[in-house]
Amino acid sequence: MNDRVATELTPFVRRGVDKRGVVTLTLDRPQSFNALSEGMLAALQAELDAVATDETARVVVIAAEGKAFCAGHDLKEMRAAPSLAYYEDLFAKCARVMLTIQRLPVPVIARVQGIATAAGCQLVAACDLAVAADVARFAVSGVNLGLFCSSPSVALARNLARKPAFEMLVTGEFISAEEARARGLVNRVAAAEALAGAVESLVATIVAKPRAAIALGKALFYRQVESGIEAAYEDAGRTMACNMMEADTLEGVQAFIDKRKPAWPS
Amino acid sequence: MNDRVATELTPFVRRGVDKRGVVTLTLDRPQSFNALSEGMLAALQAELDAVATDETARVVVIAAEGKAFCAGHDLKEMRAAPSLAYYEDLFAKCARVMLTIQRLPVPVIARVQGIATAAGCQLVAACDLAVAADVARFAVSGVNLGLFCSSPSVALARNLARKPAFEMLVTGEFISAEEARARGLVNRVAAAEALAGAVESLVATIVAKPRAAIALGKALFYRQVESGIEAAYEDAGRTMACNMMEADTLEGVQAFIDKRKPAWPS
Amino acid sequence: MNDRVATELTPFVRRGVDKRGVVTLTLDRPQSFNALSEGMLAALQAELDAVATDETARVVVIAAEGKAFCAGHDLKEMRAAPSLAYYEDLFAKCARVMLTIQRLPVPVIARVQGIATAAGCQLVAACDLAVAADVARFAVSGVNLGLFCSSPSVALARNLARKPAFEMLVTGEFISAEEARARGLVNRVAAAEALAGAVESLVATIVAKPRAAIALGKALFYRQVESGIEAAYEDAGRTMACNMMEADTLEGVQAFIDKRKPAWPS
Repeated sequence: MNDRVATELTPFVRRGVDKRGVVTLTLDRPQSFNALSEGMLAALQAELDAVATDETARVVVIAAEGKAFCAGHDLKEMRAAPSLAYYEDLFAKCARVMLTIQRLPVPVIARVQGIATAAGCQLVAACDLAVAADVARFAVSGVNLGLFCSSPSVALARNLARKPAFEMLVTGEFISAEEARARGLVNRVAAAEALAGAVESLVATIVAKPRAAIALGKALFYRQVESGIEAAYEDAGRTMACNMMEADTLEGVQAFIDKRKPAWPS
Repeated sequence: MNDRVATELTPFVRRGVDKRGVVTLTLDRPQSFNALSEGMLAALQAELDAVATDETARVVVIAAEGKAFCAGHDLKEMRAAPSLAYYEDLFAKCARVMLTIQRLPVPVIARVQGIATAAGCQLVAACDLAVAADVARFAVSGVNLGLFCSSPSVALARNLARKPAFEMLVTGEFISAEEARARGLVNRVAAAEALAGAVESLVATIVAKPRAAIALGKALFYRQVESGIEAAYEDAGRTMACNMMEADTLEGVQAFIDKRKPAWPS
Repeated sequence: MNDRVATELTPFVRRGVDKRGVVTLTLDRPQSFNALSEGMLAALQAELDAVATDETARVVVIAAEGKAFCAGHDLKEMRAAPSLAYYEDLFAKCARVMLTIQRLPVPVIARVQGIATAAGCQLVAACDLAVAADVARFAVSGVNLGLFCSSPSVALARNLARKPAFEMLVTGEFISAEEARARGLVNRVAAAEALAGAVESLVATIVAKPRAAIALGKALFYRQVESGIEAAYEDAGRTMACNMMEADTLEGVQAFIDKRKPAWPS
């Protein structure tokens, strides 16, 4: 309840949208290192749900205010309510946010300007793409307190190879932005002052493409990685055939043949 | 029909076999960047099917003539027949080529001398091994035309980590040969003039081994990656036990014990 | 039978335990390159089974005496008993050792001071973590004798990307410690004289954490990598909720809030 009130007074997540449909969701609790409190999770969920049904949205950037990107769960809030049912509910809410990101019809980019720890590191891993400042650092550090980052391990192990992922989980140690890139947790690293530009270059390339093709393709991508290769190809072939029949695609292919720019509405 | 005629007059795929059983299949439509037209797919399928039943074949090298390795589907041909059924059939034929490569009893090496885009990049990913010239570049660029590379994503996501794979799919941007190597899409990179030698060094090490061991092992490899670890070990243990009972293997192990070269027929 | 006698006279595996619960299992057949003979496998299995039920154990280090870490199966022993049933049984015993490592409630670290080949390379891959001397080298070299490393491929393909894994399997060639690190087979590489220290730094960070959190987390980690992402998150959420209810964890979180060290029994 308090969370809801707080959300309305000073929002957990600041929302910005530009005319291209680029939705920037900025975690805005710098004093608590943008912890994923109940209020923050509810705000993120609400914002993502809004994007899910907004046909003008083209891409989501998850950014953060302050020194930290996100420090994981709100430990004070968690400690104050020690019950199994409460924790199960909390982790289910957190997982729902992560799965919502994956299920959105538009790509989600993490813009990581500072440390991302525990469920904050999970949030980076759960995004489709991530760009980090060179000063950003990453850890799944719950184990330091006796709370193994089990939920973050789900996202992490789908980004990194098994041994480096397990090492981070069991040591709780930080890795640098550059290590994160080499291991597959982030796509690109930029100097802090060039971070916005590095994100914008990804954003610009995405908004230049037809929305429907990306929506179809993103959904297929995450379906096929969980399938055997034969079922994956069947699904992909059907998806691509549908994609090819879209008016934008037929125009895009014709334009390529004609060596001209496609006449897409955008 | 025209394709079949064309295949007979000027083959889409040039076939070379040396006395060791090294089958080189050279995509030979440089003027159309070796696009995977219906004719090219049919020719590749026929050649691969022939290898599948040829007990003298030891390894396949997929090479290409001209500046491009393979530019993906033939967009003119595709655009000329805009029907869902046609596209579903086309992508099914393409997937069949990719799965045939994986199911061949001999290793298949892509020798990538130039750009590999869209389904051409998929072809590289679908091979067991790949060697690239340092000037080669790789992209899954369909999204630029509004056609997300869904089918290529199946092969790509089984080579690269998730975030770099998704980045290539959603941006359509090129990566260099060296980036392709670092990310797992190709095994080795060589200067253009050293490409043939780099492929030959892989070929030579493969033909020096018993054919049956490699056939057993390759099939097991792709079975086990789709299994849980327990089922994978059971399958692998049975496979290795059968492999050990082969005359060539018993001789190979005895030769190792005796510190001599194995007396294999080859 | 002879193996059992030998085990008692000169153990295949030397066991050391320190007061922190760090169990060091040293493969001690340097003259046979620590081959995984029936005796060695039985000794390893017995030692690992003992760790599984020892609540004071905190971490296992698998080390080796002599120049080699482990050269894989004992080929003389194998060659002397050429029967399908014998080989199936042998590979099942070997797989059981590997699966036991994964199922142990404590992390298992390979300390790789020399070459690790075939099932010796599998042993490294099957450990949760691995630290290698810079002079160590890795190969799945069975194919050189006509015995494709099918069982090692199960562990290898769960560490490395597909193409580099297949390359090692089909060529049988060595990779360096540094390559092994870049590809995900080992976590850290150290100069030979710094190897013990590099292992100790991993050990120290592990023993500083509550045992139960690591046990819960390790088990969850290997369960979730085999699940679809939705089931994985459900399992992880329940696991973390249980983990949070542990007395050590509630204390760890409280200590973090209070900015003091946790008052854990250890």
